[in-house]
Amino acid sequence: MSTAPKDIETLIDLMARLPGLGPRSARRAVLFLLGKNRRLLAPLGEAMTAVAQTARDCLNCGNIGTSDICDICTSEKRATGEICVVEDVADLWAMERAGVFKGRYHVLGGTLSALDAVGPEELRIPKLRDRAVSEGATEIILALGATVDGQTTAHYIAEALEGTGVAVTSLAQGVPIGGELDYLDDGTITAALRARKSF
Amino acid sequence: MSTAPKDIETLIDLMARLPGLGPRSARRAVLFLLGKNRRLLAPLGEAMTAVAQTARDCLNCGNIGTSDICDICTSEKRATGEICVVEDVADLWAMERAGVFKGRYHVLGGTLSALDAVGPEELRIPKLRDRAVSEGATEIILALGATVDGQTTAHYIAEALEGTGVAVTSLAQGVPIGGELDYLDDGTITAALRARKSF
Repeated sequence: MSTAPKDIETLIDLMARLPGLGPRSARRAVLFLLGKNRRLLAPLGEAMTAVAQTARDCLNCGNIGTSDICDICTSEKRATGEICVVEDVADLWAMERAGVFKGRYHVLGGTLSALDAVGPEELRIPKLRDRAVSEGATEIILALGATVDGQTTAHYIAEALEGTGVAVTSLAQGVPIGGELDYLDDGTITAALRARKSF
Repeated sequence: MSTAPKDIETLIDLMARLPGLGPRSARRAVLFLLGKNRRLLAPLGEAMTAVAQTARDCLNCGNIGTSDICDICTSEKRATGEICVVEDVADLWAMERAGVFKGRYHVLGGTLSALDAVGPEELRIPKLRDRAVSEGATEIILALGATVDGQTTAHYIAEALEGTGVAVTSLAQGVPIGGELDYLDDGTITAALRARKSF
């Protein structure tokens, strides 16, 4: 027996597919939305429809925007000659939140994975090489995760960029701000010790 | 500096107001939706708009439906003479999931609360008294929470129904199915012992 009208059950089923929500919390969220029909449910529906219609991947860097070329790629201020390579849009947003990087990005959309049949073409690595030359880049910063897949991809990109004359750098590895040695894993401590600097 | 296009930031802000989602998990949910644009984001937006337009409270019982009188109130099969009083629609859905109650409901929309200025009128208690008479109810089942507010409301309703000749009952209190005595609070054990029955 269905407990709610069909429209509402459909909405609950769709909401339950979001990460972090299960069937029960989706039900709770929908009831919450129904209680604030005018102020939240209708605007949320409109916002989703609007984003679904306008959002697209930037043809140049892979960032999500509302036009063929994203705001960062069109901004002349961001043409610093630095291109930061990130795995996905969430990482790009994290970099932008930090607000310290003033150049442009290149979003791979994942990492190389033989198992999942993700090759250089899928990650738009040839496109990155083209950009490095056509945009006259001086430095490619690899901001990939410190995981096996991330580092494999980083090594592949560094090799692919050989011969372009562009400097390839990667984010520093070490003790995170606010981190205590006691809680750090061996790998991080080893990396931090090897990369020690004069104080 | 905004990290995402305005449309997407608006969507994230709205999503972050859902129960169980914060700014960070809303961001993650929106990125997940953007990755499944066609299959999830657009249908979810449409489902929300549809529900926002059609969902309304049943004028008779307060249940959420897509017409002025909900499916349960219009169904002749549910005219058993029993009316189950619940706090909100979530409780009604919980009762329906159990599938054991075959009568109609009356949704209060909350509990009596002097602090929040919630009186009998707001909870549609006079309407319940009218229904008890007009629908020829034989039994009003109080399925309110076993909290102080819930029980205060239950006592008020029982008094309000005096003189109508309708039997007023309430859900049994005791050991939940699958419960172990060791983990039960004193109040539940006391209630279960007082309401003991022949085996």
